[in-house]
Amino acid sequence: MRSAVEQALSGISAGQTPFGACVVKDGRLVAGGHNVVWATTDITAHAEVHVIRKACAGLGTVDLSGCTIYSTCEPCPMCFSAIHWANIGRIVYGASIEDAGNAGFDELRISNSTLNDLGKAGIEIVSGVLKDECVRLFELWKQRPDHQAY
Amino acid sequence: MRSAVEQALSGISAGQTPFGACVVKDGRLVAGGHNVVWATTDITAHAEVHVIRKACAGLGTVDLSGCTIYSTCEPCPMCFSAIHWANIGRIVYGASIEDAGNAGFDELRISNSTLNDLGKAGIEIVSGVLKDECVRLFELWKQRPDHQAY
Repeated sequence: MRSAVEQALSGISAGQTPFGACVVKDGRLVAGGHNVVWATTDITAHAEVHVIRKACAGLGTVDLSGCTIYSTCEPCPMCFSAIHWANIGRIVYGASIEDAGNAGFDELRISNSTLNDLGKAGIEIVSGVLKDECVRLFELWKQRPDHQAY
Repeated sequence: MRSAVEQALSGISAGQTPFGACVVKDGRLVAGGHNVVWATTDITAHAEVHVIRKACAGLGTVDLSGCTIYSTCEPCPMCFSAIHWANIGRIVYGASIEDAGNAGFDELRISNSTLNDLGKAGIEIVSGVLKDECVRLFELWKQRPDHQAY
């Protein structure tokens, strides 16, 4: 999770939104990155989708069974579903979608029940890891004069 | 929708899964494509996500307000959420997720209620357009000796 936080900090420095993630397999970092929606003009480039794509490319497979994804924030349904399709069995996250909403990100347009509903698929979900540090990322991001949510 | 079907046919010919999509704005085709999960070793490259990325790149914006997305199959929650984030206000699709499941695609691991639940966000959804042609894509795909779902 510290690696995911560092990725988010890099993202903030680069003018991106404050979300970082990484994919780990057998204790080894497979892929890390941050949200690059603005940098790549790609609305799908949330941190989790971005690192899943990198992990697929790096490992040469679309099957990430046995991997864990760490994210500084609770995955949105797009990211959660991408995690599902990739066969990632474990999600560890820090801040909640509600925390992101409090920081100015759109959360209300997606049902709060969705993640739990999808969670029935059997993915292990660990929440609140390094939560204070992950929530603080939002504050650091808001201190940038050019910060912009979507 | 005919353009989306043609994209799916191209995908089948290229050894990909039988899903096509396109994004239209003001009656003009903005982006078209098919599922390229196998071609790009990217589990997130469903047809809808792929064309949203292309539309963002083509229009130079992450805001696809005013666009309609046509898909040969009902979007999965990943794609539906990507459509949501892109501010696309209208989805037109042919075959259902159940049809895809009948053809051998994994559908059971994601709750059937998810799409309707997310649908409360206010996206207009038109189903069953050219449904027979869209379902037939699955048959054409299964006739290929190298066909492979995921």
